[in-house]
Amino acid sequence: MNIIIHDVGMRDGLQIEKDLIPLEKKIEWIKKLMDSGIDIIQMGSFVNPKKVPSMADTEQLFIQLNKIKKPSTVFSALVLNEKGVERGMSVDVEMFCMGVSASETHSQKNTGMSVSEATERIIAMAKECIKAGKKVQVSVQSAFGCGFEGKIPEERVISIVEKYLEAGIKNISLADTAGHGNPEKVEKLYSAIFKLDSTVECACHFHNTYGLGLLNCYTAMKAGVKYIETAFGGLGGCPFTKSPAGNVSTEDFVHLLQQLDIRQDIKLDKVIEIAKDTSSFFKRELPGMIYKIGKLREM
Amino acid sequence: MNIIIHDVGMRDGLQIEKDLIPLEKKIEWIKKLMDSGIDIIQMGSFVNPKKVPSMADTEQLFIQLNKIKKPSTVFSALVLNEKGVERGMSVDVEMFCMGVSASETHSQKNTGMSVSEATERIIAMAKECIKAGKKVQVSVQSAFGCGFEGKIPEERVISIVEKYLEAGIKNISLADTAGHGNPEKVEKLYSAIFKLDSTVECACHFHNTYGLGLLNCYTAMKAGVKYIETAFGGLGGCPFTKSPAGNVSTEDFVHLLQQLDIRQDIKLDKVIEIAKDTSSFFKRELPGMIYKIGKLREM
Repeated sequence: MNIIIHDVGMRDGLQIEKDLIPLEKKIEWIKKLMDSGIDIIQMGSFVNPKKVPSMADTEQLFIQLNKIKKPSTVFSALVLNEKGVERGMSVDVEMFCMGVSASETHSQKNTGMSVSEATERIIAMAKECIKAGKKVQVSVQSAFGCGFEGKIPEERVISIVEKYLEAGIKNISLADTAGHGNPEKVEKLYSAIFKLDSTVECACHFHNTYGLGLLNCYTAMKAGVKYIETAFGGLGGCPFTKSPAGNVSTEDFVHLLQQLDIRQDIKLDKVIEIAKDTSSFFKRELPGMIYKIGKLREM
Repeated sequence: MNIIIHDVGMRDGLQIEKDLIPLEKKIEWIKKLMDSGIDIIQMGSFVNPKKVPSMADTEQLFIQLNKIKKPSTVFSALVLNEKGVERGMSVDVEMFCMGVSASETHSQKNTGMSVSEATERIIAMAKECIKAGKKVQVSVQSAFGCGFEGKIPEERVISIVEKYLEAGIKNISLADTAGHGNPEKVEKLYSAIFKLDSTVECACHFHNTYGLGLLNCYTAMKAGVKYIETAFGGLGGCPFTKSPAGNVSTEDFVHLLQQLDIRQDIKLDKVIEIAKDTSSFFKRELPGMIYKIGKLREM
Protein backbone atom coordinates (compact mmCIF):
# COMPACT_ATOMS: atom_id res chain seq x y z
CA MET A 1 0.00 0.00 0.00
CA ASN A 2 1.50 3.30 -1.06
CA ILE A 3 0.77 5.76 1.72
CA ILE A 4 2.23 9.27 1.52
CA ILE A 5 2.89 11.23 4.72
CA HIS A 6 2.36 14.98 4.58
CA ASP A 7 3.72 16.48 7.80
CA VAL A 8 1.96 19.74 8.63
CA GLY A 9 3.56 20.33 12.05
CA MET A 10 5.69 23.27 10.90
CA ARG A 11 2.49 25.02 9.81
CA ASP A 12 -0.59 23.68 11.61
CA GLY A 13 1.49 22.83 14.67
CA LEU A 14 3.55 25.99 15.05
CA GLN A 15 1.08 28.64 13.84
CA ILE A 16 -0.68 28.71 17.20
CA GLU A 17 2.47 28.81 19.33
CA LYS A 18 3.00 32.04 21.23
CA ASP A 19 6.77 31.57 21.53
CA LEU A 20 8.62 32.76 18.45
CA ILE A 21 10.73 29.88 17.18
CA PRO A 22 14.19 30.87 15.91
CA LEU A 23 14.66 30.29 12.18
CA GLU A 24 17.62 27.98 12.92
CA LYS A 25 15.42 25.74 15.07
CA LYS A 26 12.83 25.50 12.33
CA ILE A 27 15.52 24.65 9.79
CA GLU A 28 16.88 21.97 12.10
CA TRP A 29 13.43 20.33 12.47
CA ILE A 30 12.72 20.46 8.73
CA LYS A 31 16.12 18.95 7.92
CA LYS A 32 15.42 16.11 10.35
CA LEU A 33 11.97 15.55 8.87
CA MET A 34 13.60 15.39 5.43
CA ASP A 35 16.21 12.90 6.71
CA SER A 36 13.51 10.72 8.21
CA GLY A 37 12.01 10.20 4.77
CA ILE A 38 8.70 12.00 5.39
CA ASP A 39 7.36 12.62 1.87
CA ILE A 40 5.85 16.09 1.99
CA ILE A 41 6.76 18.77 4.53
CA GLN A 42 4.50 21.76 4.99
CA MET A 43 6.95 24.56 5.73
CA GLY A 44 4.54 27.28 6.77
CA SER A 45 1.84 29.55 5.40
CA PHE A 46 1.86 32.84 3.53
CA VAL A 47 -0.47 34.79 5.77
CA ASN A 48 -0.40 38.26 7.25
CA PRO A 49 2.76 38.22 9.45
CA LYS A 50 1.10 40.70 11.82
CA LYS A 51 -1.77 38.29 12.42
CA VAL A 52 0.36 35.13 12.59
CA PRO A 53 3.89 36.17 13.59
CA SER A 54 5.08 32.56 13.89
CA MET A 55 4.66 32.18 10.11
CA ALA A 56 6.48 35.40 9.16
CA ASP A 57 9.69 33.58 8.18
CA THR A 58 8.08 31.19 5.68
CA GLU A 59 9.86 32.88 2.73
CA GLN A 60 13.19 32.51 4.51
CA LEU A 61 12.59 28.80 5.05
CA PHE A 62 12.01 28.22 1.34
CA ILE A 63 14.99 30.35 0.32
CA GLN A 64 17.37 28.53 2.63
CA LEU A 65 16.01 25.01 2.32
CA ASN A 66 15.11 24.78 -1.39
CA LYS A 67 18.88 24.75 -1.98
CA ILE A 68 19.39 21.54 -0.05
CA LYS A 69 16.07 19.80 -0.68
CA LYS A 70 16.26 16.12 -1.62
CA PRO A 71 14.55 15.27 -4.91
CA SER A 72 12.36 12.73 -3.08
CA THR A 73 10.96 15.36 -0.67
CA VAL A 74 8.26 17.87 -1.50
CA PHE A 75 8.02 21.20 0.35
CA SER A 76 4.48 22.55 0.55
CA ALA A 77 2.95 25.77 1.85
CA LEU A 78 -0.54 26.93 2.72
CA VAL A 79 -1.93 30.01 0.98
CA LEU A 80 -5.16 31.82 1.79
CA ASN A 81 -5.34 34.34 -1.05
CA GLU A 82 -3.74 35.74 -4.23
CA LYS A 83 -1.16 37.68 -2.25
CA GLY A 84 -0.07 34.42 -0.63
CA VAL A 85 0.24 32.73 -4.03
CA GLU A 86 2.39 35.62 -5.21
CA ARG A 87 4.65 35.37 -2.19
CA GLY A 88 4.92 31.60 -2.62
CA MET A 89 5.77 31.94 -6.31
CA SER A 90 8.52 34.41 -5.45
CA VAL A 91 10.33 31.77 -3.37
CA ASP A 92 9.62 28.87 -5.71
CA VAL A 93 7.17 26.85 -3.60
CA GLU A 94 6.77 23.40 -5.15
CA MET A 95 3.32 22.52 -3.78
CA PHE A 96 0.53 24.94 -2.94
CA CYS A 97 -2.21 23.96 -0.49
CA MET A 98 -5.42 25.94 -0.23
CA GLY A 99 -9.01 25.33 0.71
CA VAL A 100 -12.48 26.42 1.64
CA SER A 101 -14.68 25.55 4.59
CA ALA A 102 -17.88 23.58 4.11
CA SER A 103 -19.39 25.59 6.96
CA GLU A 104 -20.90 29.00 6.09
CA THR A 105 -20.15 30.36 9.58
CA HIS A 106 -16.56 29.11 9.53
CA SER A 107 -16.08 30.48 6.00
CA GLN A 108 -17.46 33.91 6.92
CA LYS A 109 -15.36 34.10 10.09
CA ASN A 110 -12.19 32.97 8.33
CA THR A 111 -12.47 34.74 4.98
CA GLY A 112 -15.43 37.13 5.10
CA MET A 113 -16.82 35.24 2.12
CA SER A 114 -19.63 32.75 1.59
CA VAL A 115 -18.67 29.16 0.81
CA SER A 116 -19.53 29.55 -2.86
CA GLU A 117 -17.60 32.83 -3.23
CA ALA A 118 -14.61 31.29 -1.48
CA THR A 119 -14.77 28.17 -3.66
CA GLU A 120 -14.75 30.23 -6.84
CA ARG A 121 -11.75 32.22 -5.64
CA ILE A 122 -9.78 29.16 -4.51
CA ILE A 123 -10.41 27.40 -7.83
CA ALA A 124 -9.09 30.44 -9.71
CA MET A 125 -5.97 30.48 -7.51
CA ALA A 126 -5.48 26.72 -7.92
CA LYS A 127 -5.72 27.00 -11.69
CA GLU A 128 -3.13 29.75 -11.71
CA CYS A 129 -0.73 27.57 -9.72
CA ILE A 130 -1.31 24.54 -11.96
CA LYS A 131 -0.69 26.76 -15.01
CA ALA A 132 2.63 27.78 -13.45
CA GLY A 133 3.59 24.09 -13.23
CA LYS A 134 3.04 23.77 -9.49
CA LYS A 135 1.67 20.83 -7.51
CA VAL A 136 -1.65 21.83 -5.98
CA GLN A 137 -3.81 20.40 -3.22
CA VAL A 138 -7.24 21.83 -2.53
CA SER A 139 -9.14 21.07 0.63
CA VAL A 140 -12.54 21.14 2.24
CA GLN A 141 -12.27 22.26 5.86
CA SER A 142 -14.84 21.36 8.52
CA ALA A 143 -15.74 18.45 6.25
CA PHE A 144 -16.82 16.22 9.15
CA GLY A 145 -18.48 18.81 11.37
CA CYS A 146 -17.99 22.37 12.53
CA GLY A 147 -17.26 23.88 15.93
CA PHE A 148 -19.79 26.63 15.17
CA GLU A 149 -22.47 24.89 13.12
CA GLY A 150 -22.24 21.31 14.36
CA LYS A 151 -23.27 18.80 11.71
CA ILE A 152 -22.25 19.50 8.13
CA PRO A 153 -24.46 17.75 5.56
CA GLU A 154 -22.50 15.42 3.29
CA GLU A 155 -24.01 17.08 0.21
CA ARG A 156 -22.31 20.36 1.07
CA VAL A 157 -18.90 18.73 1.10
CA ILE A 158 -19.64 16.79 -2.07
CA SER A 159 -20.82 19.89 -3.94
CA ILE A 160 -17.46 21.60 -3.25
CA VAL A 161 -15.58 18.47 -4.32
CA GLU A 162 -17.63 18.39 -7.55
CA LYS A 163 -16.59 21.97 -8.32
CA TYR A 164 -12.93 21.05 -7.74
CA LEU A 165 -13.27 18.08 -10.06
CA GLU A 166 -15.04 20.13 -12.74
CA ALA A 167 -12.07 22.50 -12.61
CA GLY A 168 -9.76 19.54 -13.21
CA ILE A 169 -8.18 19.55 -9.73
CA LYS A 170 -7.74 16.00 -8.50
CA ASN A 171 -5.63 16.28 -5.35
CA ILE A 172 -8.32 16.85 -2.72
CA SER A 173 -8.01 16.85 1.07
CA LEU A 174 -10.81 16.65 3.62
CA ALA A 175 -9.94 18.39 6.86
CA ASP A 176 -11.50 17.73 10.25
CA THR A 177 -10.50 20.91 12.06
CA ALA A 178 -12.91 20.46 14.95
CA GLY A 179 -12.24 16.74 15.36
CA HIS A 180 -15.85 15.69 14.72
CA GLY A 181 -14.92 12.82 12.39
CA ASN A 182 -15.76 9.23 13.17
CA PRO A 183 -15.06 6.08 11.15
CA GLU A 184 -18.56 5.86 9.71
CA LYS A 185 -18.54 9.46 8.49
CA VAL A 186 -15.03 8.95 7.09
CA GLU A 187 -15.95 5.84 5.17
CA LYS A 188 -19.16 7.37 3.84
CA LEU A 189 -17.63 10.63 2.66
CA TYR A 190 -14.60 9.17 0.90
CA SER A 191 -16.71 6.44 -0.73
CA ALA A 192 -19.00 9.15 -2.09
CA ILE A 193 -15.99 11.01 -3.52
CA PHE A 194 -14.48 7.90 -5.12
CA LYS A 195 -17.90 7.23 -6.66
CA LEU A 196 -17.74 10.64 -8.34
CA ASP A 197 -14.29 9.90 -9.72
CA SER A 198 -12.23 6.83 -8.87
CA THR A 199 -8.99 8.57 -9.87
CA VAL A 200 -9.14 11.36 -7.26
CA GLU A 201 -5.96 11.59 -5.17
CA CYS A 202 -7.55 11.91 -1.76
CA ALA A 203 -5.90 13.31 1.36
CA CYS A 204 -7.14 13.44 4.95
CA HIS A 205 -6.36 15.78 7.83
CA PHE A 206 -7.69 14.73 11.25
CA HIS A 207 -7.38 16.31 14.65
CA ASN A 208 -7.34 14.06 17.68
CA THR A 209 -9.78 16.13 19.77
CA TYR A 210 -11.87 13.15 20.88
CA GLY A 211 -9.19 10.47 20.64
CA LEU A 212 -10.30 9.20 17.24
CA GLY A 213 -7.40 10.53 15.14
CA LEU A 214 -5.60 7.26 14.42
CA LEU A 215 -8.89 5.40 13.96
CA ASN A 216 -10.04 7.99 11.41
CA CYS A 217 -6.70 7.94 9.56
CA TYR A 218 -6.75 4.14 9.42
CA THR A 219 -10.34 4.13 8.17
CA ALA A 220 -9.50 6.74 5.52
CA MET A 221 -6.52 4.69 4.38
CA LYS A 222 -8.69 1.58 4.12
CA ALA A 223 -11.20 3.62 2.09
CA GLY A 224 -8.49 4.45 -0.46
CA VAL A 225 -7.04 7.71 0.85
CA LYS A 226 -3.36 7.93 -0.06
CA TYR A 227 -2.15 11.19 1.49
CA ILE A 228 -2.26 11.35 5.28
CA GLU A 229 -1.63 14.71 6.96
CA THR A 230 -0.10 14.51 10.43
CA ALA A 231 2.11 16.66 12.68
CA PHE A 232 5.23 15.56 14.57
CA GLY A 233 4.58 15.28 18.30
CA GLY A 234 0.84 15.67 17.64
CA LEU A 235 1.35 19.44 17.66
CA GLY A 236 -1.54 21.78 16.98
CA GLY A 237 -4.72 22.70 18.74
CA CYS A 238 -4.77 25.04 21.67
CA PRO A 239 -1.54 25.11 23.69
CA PHE A 240 -3.31 26.59 26.69
CA THR A 241 -5.25 23.50 27.55
CA LYS A 242 -3.96 20.19 28.75
CA SER A 243 -6.31 18.36 26.44
CA PRO A 244 -4.45 16.93 23.52
CA ALA A 245 -6.54 18.30 20.68
CA GLY A 246 -3.75 18.58 18.17
CA ASN A 247 -3.17 16.90 14.84
CA VAL A 248 -2.68 13.18 14.61
CA SER A 249 0.94 12.59 15.63
CA THR A 250 3.22 11.72 12.71
CA GLU A 251 5.33 9.30 14.71
CA ASP A 252 2.25 7.56 16.17
CA PHE A 253 0.79 7.11 12.69
CA VAL A 254 4.08 5.93 11.15
CA HIS A 255 4.42 3.52 14.08
CA LEU A 256 0.98 2.09 13.25
CA LEU A 257 1.90 1.83 9.56
CA GLN A 258 5.11 -0.02 10.34
CA GLN A 259 3.24 -2.44 12.64
CA LEU A 260 1.22 -3.21 9.51
CA ASP A 261 4.45 -3.59 7.53
CA ILE A 262 3.81 -0.42 5.52
CA ARG A 263 6.43 2.28 4.85
CA GLN A 264 9.29 0.54 6.67
CA ASP A 265 11.54 2.95 4.73
CA ILE A 266 10.59 5.88 6.98
CA LYS A 267 13.12 6.34 9.78
CA LEU A 268 10.73 6.39 12.72
CA ASP A 269 13.53 6.97 15.24
CA LYS A 270 14.33 10.29 13.56
CA VAL A 271 10.73 11.46 13.79
CA ILE A 272 10.66 10.45 17.45
CA GLU A 273 13.82 12.52 17.98
CA ILE A 274 12.11 15.60 16.51
CA ALA A 275 9.09 15.13 18.79
CA LYS A 276 11.37 14.81 21.83
CA ASP A 277 13.32 17.88 20.84
CA THR A 278 10.10 19.85 20.26
CA SER A 279 8.81 18.80 23.66
CA SER A 280 12.06 20.05 25.28
CA PHE A 281 11.92 23.26 23.27
CA PHE A 282 8.38 24.09 24.40
CA LYS A 283 9.03 22.67 27.89
CA ARG A 284 5.80 20.71 27.88
CA GLU A 285 4.52 17.26 27.14
CA LEU A 286 3.08 16.89 23.65
CA PRO A 287 0.04 14.74 22.83
CA GLY A 288 1.98 12.15 20.78
CA MET A 289 2.36 8.81 22.58
CA ILE A 290 5.19 6.93 20.87
CA TYR A 291 7.85 9.56 21.57
CA LYS A 292 7.08 9.10 25.28
CA ILE A 293 6.68 5.34 25.51
CA GLY A 294 9.05 4.25 22.74
CA LYS A 295 8.17 2.13 19.76
CA LEU A 296 7.07 -1.48 20.00
CA ARG A 297 10.02 -3.80 19.47
CA GLU A 298 8.98 -7.38 18.87
CA MET A 299 11.66 -9.99 19.16
CA MET B 1 -25.53 -3.52 17.07
CA ASN B 2 -25.66 -5.02 20.54
CA ILE B 3 -22.39 -4.12 22.23
CA ILE B 4 -21.89 -5.06 25.89
CA ILE B 5 -19.52 -3.00 28.05
CA HIS B 6 -17.58 -4.86 30.73
CA ASP B 7 -15.84 -2.28 32.93
CA VAL B 8 -12.71 -3.74 34.53
CA GLY B 9 -11.45 -0.53 36.17
CA MET B 10 -12.22 -1.67 39.72
CA ARG B 11 -9.97 -4.69 39.14
CA ASP B 12 -7.45 -4.10 36.31
CA GLY B 13 -7.38 -0.39 37.08
CA LEU B 14 -7.09 -0.43 40.86
CA GLN B 15 -4.99 -3.57 41.41
CA ILE B 16 -1.78 -1.70 40.61
CA GLU B 17 -2.55 1.38 42.71
CA LYS B 18 -0.29 1.85 45.72
CA ASP B 19 -2.81 3.95 47.65
CA LEU B 20 -5.34 1.85 49.50
CA ILE B 21 -8.79 2.93 48.40
CA PRO B 22 -11.39 3.08 51.19
CA LEU B 23 -14.20 0.56 50.79
CA GLU B 24 -16.74 3.42 50.79
CA LYS B 25 -15.02 5.03 47.80
CA LYS B 26 -15.08 1.77 45.88
CA ILE B 27 -18.75 1.31 46.67
CA GLU B 28 -19.47 4.86 45.49
CA TRP B 29 -17.72 4.26 42.14
CA ILE B 30 -19.42 0.90 41.58
CA LYS B 31 -22.83 2.39 42.36
CA LYS B 32 -22.20 5.16 39.84
CA LEU B 33 -21.06 2.64 37.23
CA MET B 34 -24.28 0.71 37.85
CA ASP B 35 -26.34 3.91 37.54
CA SER B 36 -24.65 4.77 34.26
CA GLY B 37 -25.97 1.57 32.71
CA ILE B 38 -22.61 -0.16 32.21
CA ASP B 39 -23.56 -3.80 31.66
CA ILE B 40 -20.93 -5.80 33.54
CA ILE B 41 -18.79 -4.45 36.38
CA GLN B 42 -15.68 -6.31 37.43
CA MET B 43 -15.57 -5.73 41.16
CA GLY B 44 -12.12 -7.09 41.95
CA SER B 45 -10.17 -10.32 42.08
CA PHE B 46 -9.81 -13.12 44.59
CA VAL B 47 -6.04 -13.18 44.88
CA ASN B 48 -3.63 -13.35 47.78
CA PRO B 49 -4.41 -10.17 49.80
CA LYS B 50 -0.78 -10.01 50.90
CA LYS B 51 0.40 -9.85 47.30
CA VAL B 52 -2.33 -7.49 46.06
CA PRO B 53 -3.60 -5.53 49.07
CA SER B 54 -5.83 -3.30 46.94
CA MET B 55 -8.01 -6.35 46.15
CA ALA B 56 -8.32 -7.57 49.75
CA ASP B 57 -11.84 -6.18 50.16
CA THR B 58 -13.35 -7.95 47.15
CA GLU B 59 -15.55 -10.18 49.38
CA GLN B 60 -16.84 -7.10 51.19
CA LEU B 61 -17.79 -5.45 47.91
CA PHE B 62 -19.90 -8.44 46.86
CA ILE B 63 -21.51 -8.78 50.30
CA GLN B 64 -22.51 -5.13 50.42
CA LEU B 65 -23.40 -4.57 46.78
CA ASN B 66 -25.13 -7.83 45.83
CA LYS B 67 -27.99 -6.56 48.04
CA ILE B 68 -28.61 -3.52 45.88
CA LYS B 69 -27.58 -4.83 42.47
CA LYS B 70 -29.93 -4.00 39.61
CA PRO B 71 -31.17 -7.05 37.69
CA SER B 72 -29.77 -5.56 34.47
CA THR B 73 -26.23 -5.32 35.86
CA VAL B 74 -23.81 -8.21 36.19
CA PHE B 75 -21.03 -8.19 38.81
CA SER B 76 -17.96 -10.16 37.77
CA ALA B 77 -14.72 -11.12 39.49
CA LEU B 78 -11.38 -12.47 38.39
CA VAL B 79 -10.13 -15.71 39.90
CA LEU B 80 -6.69 -17.27 39.44
CA ASN B 81 -7.14 -20.62 41.17
CA GLU B 82 -9.48 -22.98 43.03
CA LYS B 83 -9.11 -21.02 46.25
CA GLY B 84 -10.32 -17.93 44.41
CA VAL B 85 -13.33 -19.80 43.04
CA GLU B 86 -14.16 -20.97 46.56
CA ARG B 87 -13.94 -17.43 47.93
CA GLY B 88 -16.07 -16.15 45.03
CA MET B 89 -18.72 -18.84 45.60
CA SER B 90 -18.90 -17.93 49.29
CA VAL B 91 -20.03 -14.37 48.40
CA ASP B 92 -22.27 -15.38 45.51
CA VAL B 93 -20.30 -13.99 42.57
CA GLU B 94 -22.52 -14.02 39.47
CA MET B 95 -19.82 -14.12 36.77
CA PHE B 96 -16.38 -15.70 37.09
CA CYS B 97 -13.53 -14.58 34.81
CA MET B 98 -10.37 -16.64 34.49
CA GLY B 99 -7.73 -17.24 31.88
CA VAL B 100 -4.38 -18.49 30.72
CA SER B 101 -1.55 -16.79 28.90
CA ALA B 102 -0.63 -17.82 25.37
CA SER B 103 3.00 -17.05 26.24
CA GLU B 104 5.01 -19.80 27.99
CA THR B 105 7.22 -17.23 29.72
CA HIS B 106 4.26 -15.15 30.90
CA SER B 107 2.45 -18.31 32.06
CA GLN B 108 5.46 -19.57 34.02
CA LYS B 109 6.06 -16.18 35.64
CA ASN B 110 2.41 -15.71 36.55
CA THR B 111 1.37 -19.19 37.56
CA GLY B 112 4.48 -21.39 37.67
CA MET B 113 2.74 -23.63 35.15
CA SER B 114 3.15 -24.33 31.46
CA VAL B 115 0.43 -23.06 29.13
CA SER B 116 -1.02 -26.53 28.69
CA GLU B 117 -1.04 -27.28 32.43
CA ALA B 118 -2.66 -23.91 33.12
CA THR B 119 -5.27 -24.48 30.42
CA GLU B 120 -6.26 -27.82 31.86
CA ARG B 121 -6.61 -26.32 35.32
CA ILE B 122 -8.62 -23.31 34.15
CA ILE B 123 -10.99 -25.51 32.17
CA ALA B 124 -11.62 -27.64 35.26
CA MET B 125 -12.33 -24.49 37.29
CA ALA B 126 -14.60 -23.09 34.58
CA LYS B 127 -16.58 -26.32 34.41
CA GLU B 128 -17.05 -26.28 38.17
CA CYS B 129 -18.42 -22.72 38.00
CA ILE B 130 -20.74 -23.56 35.11
CA LYS B 131 -21.99 -26.58 37.05
CA ALA B 132 -22.77 -24.25 39.95
CA GLY B 133 -24.95 -22.18 37.60
CA LYS B 134 -22.49 -19.31 37.26
CA LYS B 135 -21.73 -17.15 34.21
CA VAL B 136 -18.15 -17.84 33.11
CA GLN B 137 -15.73 -16.03 30.85
CA VAL B 138 -12.40 -17.61 29.95
CA SER B 139 -9.60 -15.63 28.41
CA VAL B 140 -6.36 -15.93 26.52
CA GLN B 141 -3.86 -13.37 27.81
CA SER B 142 -0.98 -12.05 25.70
CA ALA B 143 -3.05 -13.09 22.69
CA PHE B 144 -1.61 -10.36 20.47
CA GLY B 145 2.00 -10.38 21.65
CA CYS B 146 3.96 -10.67 24.86
CA GLY B 147 6.21 -8.25 26.72
CA PHE B 148 8.65 -11.10 27.35
CA GLU B 149 8.43 -13.24 24.21
CA GLY B 150 7.40 -10.72 21.58
CA LYS B 151 5.33 -12.28 18.80
CA ILE B 152 2.83 -14.96 19.75
CA PRO B 153 1.96 -17.28 16.86
CA GLU B 154 -1.75 -17.26 16.04
CA GLU B 155 -1.85 -21.08 16.24
CA ARG B 156 -0.97 -20.95 19.93
CA VAL B 157 -3.94 -18.72 20.70
CA ILE B 158 -6.22 -20.81 18.51
CA SER B 159 -5.18 -24.07 20.16
CA ILE B 160 -6.20 -22.70 23.58
CA VAL B 161 -9.50 -21.45 22.14
CA GLU B 162 -10.12 -24.90 20.66
CA LYS B 163 -9.66 -26.48 24.08
CA TYR B 164 -12.14 -24.01 25.59
CA LEU B 165 -14.65 -24.82 22.87
CA GLU B 166 -14.17 -28.59 23.27
CA ALA B 167 -14.98 -28.09 26.95
CA GLY B 168 -18.19 -26.33 25.96
CA ILE B 169 -17.13 -22.85 27.13
CA LYS B 170 -18.28 -20.24 24.64
CA ASN B 171 -17.65 -16.90 26.32
CA ILE B 172 -14.04 -16.24 25.32
CA SER B 173 -11.98 -13.08 25.75
CA LEU B 174 -8.69 -12.24 24.05
CA ALA B 175 -6.54 -9.94 26.18
CA ASP B 176 -3.78 -7.69 24.92
CA THR B 177 -1.93 -7.09 28.18
CA ALA B 178 1.20 -5.68 26.55
CA GLY B 179 -0.65 -3.55 24.01
CA HIS B 180 0.86 -5.27 20.96
CA GLY B 181 -2.43 -5.53 19.10
CA ASN B 182 -3.04 -3.86 15.77
CA PRO B 183 -6.14 -3.88 13.58
CA GLU B 184 -4.79 -6.53 11.19
CA LYS B 185 -3.92 -8.94 14.00
CA VAL B 186 -7.30 -8.27 15.61
CA GLU B 187 -9.24 -8.97 12.45
CA LYS B 188 -7.25 -12.10 11.66
CA LEU B 189 -7.48 -13.65 15.10
CA TYR B 190 -11.20 -13.11 15.65
CA SER B 191 -12.02 -14.25 12.11
CA ALA B 192 -10.10 -17.45 12.82
CA ILE B 193 -12.11 -17.97 16.01
CA PHE B 194 -15.47 -17.33 14.35
CA LYS B 195 -14.45 -19.83 11.65
CA LEU B 196 -14.01 -22.47 14.38
CA ASP B 197 -17.45 -21.70 15.77
CA SER B 198 -19.67 -18.87 14.60
CA THR B 199 -21.63 -18.89 17.87
CA VAL B 200 -18.71 -18.00 20.17
CA GLU B 201 -19.45 -15.01 22.39
CA CYS B 202 -16.20 -13.13 21.92
CA ALA B 203 -14.80 -10.47 24.21
CA CYS B 204 -11.77 -8.22 23.80
CA HIS B 205 -9.49 -6.52 26.31
CA PHE B 206 -7.04 -3.98 24.89
CA HIS B 207 -4.48 -1.77 26.56
CA ASN B 208 -3.71 1.57 24.98
CA THR B 209 0.08 1.32 25.29
CA TYR B 210 0.79 2.45 21.73
CA GLY B 211 -2.34 4.56 21.19
CA LEU B 212 -4.21 1.85 19.29
CA GLY B 213 -6.78 0.94 21.96
CA LEU B 214 -9.88 2.50 20.40
CA LEU B 215 -8.83 1.40 16.90
CA ASN B 216 -8.42 -2.18 18.12
CA CYS B 217 -11.77 -2.14 19.96
CA TYR B 218 -13.53 -0.74 16.91
CA THR B 219 -11.91 -3.35 14.66
CA ALA B 220 -12.87 -6.13 17.08
CA MET B 221 -16.44 -4.86 17.17
CA LYS B 222 -16.59 -4.81 13.37
CA ALA B 223 -15.22 -8.37 13.36
CA GLY B 224 -18.18 -9.50 15.49
CA VAL B 225 -16.87 -9.11 19.03
CA LYS B 226 -19.76 -8.29 21.34
CA TYR B 227 -18.17 -7.83 24.80
CA ILE B 228 -15.73 -4.93 25.10
CA GLU B 229 -13.62 -4.65 28.25
CA THR B 230 -12.65 -1.11 29.23
CA ALA B 231 -11.78 0.80 32.40
CA PHE B 232 -13.20 4.14 33.55
CA GLY B 233 -10.64 6.93 33.15
CA GLY B 234 -8.41 4.57 31.15
CA LEU B 235 -7.02 3.31 34.48
CA GLY B 236 -4.48 0.54 34.57
CA GLY B 237 -0.90 0.13 33.50
CA CYS B 238 1.95 1.50 35.57
CA PRO B 239 1.03 4.53 37.68
CA PHE B 240 4.67 5.57 37.95
CA THR B 241 5.09 6.62 34.36
CA LYS B 242 3.46 9.47 32.56
CA SER B 243 2.83 7.28 29.56
CA PRO B 244 -0.81 6.37 29.31
CA ALA B 245 -0.52 2.59 29.00
CA GLY B 246 -3.76 1.76 30.76
CA ASN B 247 -6.88 0.05 29.57
CA VAL B 248 -9.04 1.59 26.88
CA SER B 249 -11.06 4.26 28.66
CA THR B 250 -14.72 3.31 29.15
CA GLU B 251 -15.99 6.83 28.62
CA ASP B 252 -13.87 7.31 25.48
CA PHE B 253 -15.21 4.07 24.01
CA VAL B 254 -18.83 4.79 24.96
CA HIS B 255 -18.38 8.27 23.44
CA LEU B 256 -17.24 6.64 20.17
CA LEU B 257 -20.18 4.20 20.27
CA GLN B 258 -22.67 7.01 20.79
CA GLN B 259 -21.15 8.97 17.89
CA LEU B 260 -22.04 5.89 15.84
CA ASP B 261 -25.54 5.92 17.38
CA ILE B 262 -24.90 2.74 19.38
CA ARG B 263 -25.80 2.32 23.09
CA GLN B 264 -27.38 5.73 23.52
CA ASP B 265 -28.94 4.25 26.66
CA ILE B 266 -25.65 4.44 28.57
CA LYS B 267 -25.41 7.62 30.65
CA LEU B 268 -22.07 8.86 29.42
CA ASP B 269 -22.13 11.89 31.73
CA LYS B 270 -22.18 9.58 34.74
CA VAL B 271 -19.13 7.66 33.53
CA ILE B 272 -17.34 10.96 32.91
CA GLU B 273 -18.18 11.96 36.49
CA ILE B 274 -16.54 8.78 37.83
CA ALA B 275 -13.39 9.44 35.77
CA LYS B 276 -13.22 13.02 37.09
CA ASP B 277 -13.71 11.86 40.64
CA THR B 278 -11.06 9.15 40.25
CA SER B 279 -8.62 11.70 38.84
CA SER B 280 -9.24 13.94 41.88
CA PHE B 281 -8.91 11.00 44.25
CA PHE B 282 -5.51 9.96 42.85
CA LYS B 283 -4.50 13.61 42.34
CA ARG B 284 -3.24 12.93 38.83
CA GLU B 285 -4.41 13.16 35.26
CA LEU B 286 -5.74 9.87 33.87
CA PRO B 287 -5.18 8.72 30.29
CA GLY B 288 -8.86 9.03 29.24
CA MET B 289 -9.53 11.98 26.93
CA ILE B 290 -13.26 12.63 27.03
CA TYR B 291 -13.42 13.34 30.77
CA LYS B 292 -10.89 16.14 30.17
CA ILE B 293 -12.17 17.65 26.94
CA GLY B 294 -15.90 16.95 27.34
CA LYS B 295 -18.07 15.05 24.93
CA LEU B 296 -18.82 16.19 21.41
CA ARG B 297 -22.12 18.04 21.30
CA GLU B 298 -23.42 18.53 17.80
CA MET B 299 -26.23 20.97 17.36
